[in-house]
Amino acid sequence: MSTPTTRTDATITDITVTPIAVQDPPLLNSVGVHQSYALRAILQVRTDAGLVGLSEAYGDDPTLDRLNRASAALAGLSIWDLNGLNRRVAVALGEVAPDSPTELAGAPSVAKAIASTVSAFEVALYDLQGKATGLRVCDLLGGAVREEVPFSAYLFYKWAGHPGAEPDSFGEALDPDGIVAQARRLVDRYGFGSLKLKGGVFPPEEEIAAIRALRDAFPGHPLRLDPNANWTVETSHRVAEQLSGVLEYLEDPAGGIDGMAQVAARTDLPLATNMCVTTFDDIPPAVAAGAVRIVLSDHHFWGGLRASQKLAGICETFGLGLSMHSNTHLGVSLAAMTHLAAATSNLTYACDTHSVWQVEEVIEPGAIAVRDGAVRVPPGPGLGVTLDEDSLARLHEQYLRCGIRRRDDITPMRAVHPDWTGARPRF
Amino acid sequence: MSTPTTRTDATITDITVTPIAVQDPPLLNSVGVHQSYALRAILQVRTDAGLVGLSEAYGDDPTLDRLNRASAALAGLSIWDLNGLNRRVAVALGEVAPDSPTELAGAPSVAKAIASTVSAFEVALYDLQGKATGLRVCDLLGGAVREEVPFSAYLFYKWAGHPGAEPDSFGEALDPDGIVAQARRLVDRYGFGSLKLKGGVFPPEEEIAAIRALRDAFPGHPLRLDPNANWTVETSHRVAEQLSGVLEYLEDPAGGIDGMAQVAARTDLPLATNMCVTTFDDIPPAVAAGAVRIVLSDHHFWGGLRASQKLAGICETFGLGLSMHSNTHLGVSLAAMTHLAAATSNLTYACDTHSVWQVEEVIEPGAIAVRDGAVRVPPGPGLGVTLDEDSLARLHEQYLRCGIRRRDDITPMRAVHPDWTGARPRF
Repeated sequence: MSTPTTRTDATITDITVTPIAVQDPPLLNSVGVHQSYALRAILQVRTDAGLVGLSEAYGDDPTLDRLNRASAALAGLSIWDLNGLNRRVAVALGEVAPDSPTELAGAPSVAKAIASTVSAFEVALYDLQGKATGLRVCDLLGGAVREEVPFSAYLFYKWAGHPGAEPDSFGEALDPDGIVAQARRLVDRYGFGSLKLKGGVFPPEEEIAAIRALRDAFPGHPLRLDPNANWTVETSHRVAEQLSGVLEYLEDPAGGIDGMAQVAARTDLPLATNMCVTTFDDIPPAVAAGAVRIVLSDHHFWGGLRASQKLAGICETFGLGLSMHSNTHLGVSLAAMTHLAAATSNLTYACDTHSVWQVEEVIEPGAIAVRDGAVRVPPGPGLGVTLDEDSLARLHEQYLRCGIRRRDDITPMRAVHPDWTGARPRF
Repeated sequence: MSTPTTRTDATITDITVTPIAVQDPPLLNSVGVHQSYALRAILQVRTDAGLVGLSEAYGDDPTLDRLNRASAALAGLSIWDLNGLNRRVAVALGEVAPDSPTELAGAPSVAKAIASTVSAFEVALYDLQGKATGLRVCDLLGGAVREEVPFSAYLFYKWAGHPGAEPDSFGEALDPDGIVAQARRLVDRYGFGSLKLKGGVFPPEEEIAAIRALRDAFPGHPLRLDPNANWTVETSHRVAEQLSGVLEYLEDPAGGIDGMAQVAARTDLPLATNMCVTTFDDIPPAVAAGAVRIVLSDHHFWGGLRASQKLAGICETFGLGLSMHSNTHLGVSLAAMTHLAAATSNLTYACDTHSVWQVEEVIEPGAIAVRDGAVRVPPGPGLGVTLDEDSLARLHEQYLRCGIRRRDDITPMRAVHPDWTGARPRF
């Protein structure tokens, strides 16, 4: 029996965390509006074998602080020791102040801060494992059950441009006609087979009208609506009644496990969440209450690719559907999302992605293509993406220049609506 | 950035399934008594890279039939494609007759037949992945959180020898004194720090007396009692009341999720199971009923190492404890169990193993050592065990000679107690 002479193990020697800012259009949501720039961080994890693993994470100040504190604790860690990564990060951040990387992903907690930090490094370790073995990340996750991962067209109400700036290339969308036109452009250009509308922006009747207009314009496309918990339970009941049989699922109509359970008890419309179930601790009470039928995973805040597989196993065991959530991201994250989805057999819904809204990219030769509404699994090794060092430098300069250090959807909304608070539920 | 030149991928070319029989002492349990020989199967999975992966499975006729049918469907499978393994086995066994590899592991089902078959090959694939990369199986499972895995001393009531045969080397144990003497020998020889008594053999008062005698003789050792669902709910209540505060946990006192839930509702003694929760389908009703506080995993029938990690994640999420079940096994299985346990952070109970009752072995240079009540993680690569080809041939000859083709604890009991039925609950 032959044994290997190869060295596929390696240990971390050095980590670079580079914050970047990417232009972001004025996408409206229940809290407010996207700022002119979205923040991300690009991680380069180097090993004693000369390999570099890539990852992409949130880029706000609290996240950067955690990434830098954890980086200092990871020298010497084996690229295979994911359990060791969890332990070291938990120790390094043991006294971290609770804070959430995004306002739209549920309540902040220390556990979530640790999970999102672990994730940032874990993706880079998988990239390194793949580069060390010649395998794709999806192969390391148990093998691809699909070579093309379907994504949904993520529709947003939006202004023509940021206040005081020129209109952007995407156009205005503030009513049913605008949303249908936006969907048409995205479907024509990318071939999306599912449509998701970010709601919670206008009174529910207007959003119901938009969904009905989408139904008429795209009779064969599954539709979703996500008002980000901006409705009361009563409003949620009213909308669910009107959209039952029209939507594939309704995402986070009301806030909290209790609110969602009250909505679920009176509708046969499947409810989905990426807000009331965002950590493993949320699962037992949500299951007991029958609050949701679909969970949207997101490796960025559930704790990484392996934690997302754990979530997938729980959903499979408890008869819950599984979909995938997205925040604004670039190509390194899209690659990680695609490898994960490719290896997750019970991920049966088209995944969310913001990537069509980004005009800047950090990988070469540019953004990963979406064709026929799907992304092909990058060929590897590892994530199968290559960093564009010039773009990284440029986007880092943009970060330094733009002055934004935290995601804040409320302040730019106040520039237009001075009395805006972002408080929910608004309807 | 350097990329690999190594080939760590490989595909299956050929599989050999060798049934073996190993001498087994007359260990008593709720169903009857162990036969003179226990059946196992040794799998050798060969690849186009010239590597051989090992695994050990049940060796009864229904299992062998499934292993051989699945083997025929696995040529060309990548050693990394665990999802593909599941799919191919499920297809190959799609019409398999429901049958259970062991009478003591819950109700039979097609899903369980598929899970145990997948497991048999999956362990060999992990061994191959390790051999291809130079890594240990525990490293491929996320990294060792412990380098020594604690096991418990598995105490059995037993006859001096099989009827009509010479007494074996282990001695008789049919009362509290015999059990304490047996425990003393095992603790002295192997350093076990936990004791588990297989019960359900004698009237509960005798087994309570044995536990009390163990408590007196080993005041610092956690104790467990496992009557394999041979008690009614009422009897279980009575025993639980008497042993509350004495046992670490009580394993499967009564049968079924409903029976266990009735026992659990009236005791603070933690209840454990490897009988009423043996598939993922059992988990939601068991959780809803509050039937158990500890699940004993077993990669042989839960579907392999990755499925056992999924179970571990569910237990962690739902606040259930995790321990490890054992059937009669040899060193290949012990290595797999040890790698899995080493990589499972929430496996906080000492694992079960029958290995101290085996006088024959199929790996060289002999059985893996148990020292200070623990097994060191084999150094790898892969499982880190080497097949003893001479022993394999000898144990296969023994299989051909012995005539046993299914596990049957009832018939040998009838040789001594002609009216024995094995029906439960008996007390």
